[in-house]
Amino acid sequence: MVEFLCGLDAAVAVVGGKWKPLILWALSVEPRRTGELRRELSGVSEKVLTQQLRELERDGVVHREIHQQVPPKVVYRLTRKGAALDRALRPLGEWGEEHMDAIREVRA
Amino acid sequence: MVEFLCGLDAAVAVVGGKWKPLILWALSVEPRRTGELRRELSGVSEKVLTQQLRELERDGVVHREIHQQVPPKVVYRLTRKGAALDRALRPLGEWGEEHMDAIREVRA
Repeated sequence: MVEFLCGLDAAVAVVGGKWKPLILWALSVEPRRTGELRRELSGVSEKVLTQQLRELERDGVVHREIHQQVPPKVVYRLTRKGAALDRALRPLGEWGEEHMDAIREVRA
Repeated sequence: MVEFLCGLDAAVAVVGGKWKPLILWALSVEPRRTGELRRELSGVSEKVLTQQLRELERDGVVHREIHQQVPPKVVYRLTRKGAALDRALRPLGEWGEEHMDAIREVRA
């Protein structure tokens, strides 16, 4: 059984991983197909993207929707819980945006 | 030169690491000495705590204050930027708190 130190620790378990916040952000704009996500997140491999989407689905923040057509169309969307997570990430993203230059500088 | 994908990516570079959010949280209550932090964060080794404090100091979110007395007293406090980071983390912590049981369950 995984134990979490606090709520933030649990949240990071869900959203940790280079691409997950960006996936949430893209899906918060509108539902997307895998190919659309790949184009938007330039640099992610198909394997990594699929893996991260599966984990987000398992954690109940992303819903995978299959449209029965030929060929079948698979669309990912945020669940209510995922939309709340995306909103909860915004202040942290804004803090990072504001201080990005300084954060980069001390790592140069 | 480190490149960040977005503000959140930059913020995670600062606050990533098991203990950093807890250090920020403890210091948001009041400034602390290293020994006090160690007792509060039960489980952290002195080496890891010192390392994380140094990184937080380098990133300008924690200030190390030396009181000239015998023996010298070292106190850590949040900078203004660090207090803003702590506040920005709160919504994410609350989301994790709310969904912790479910997050734990799918990992059992």
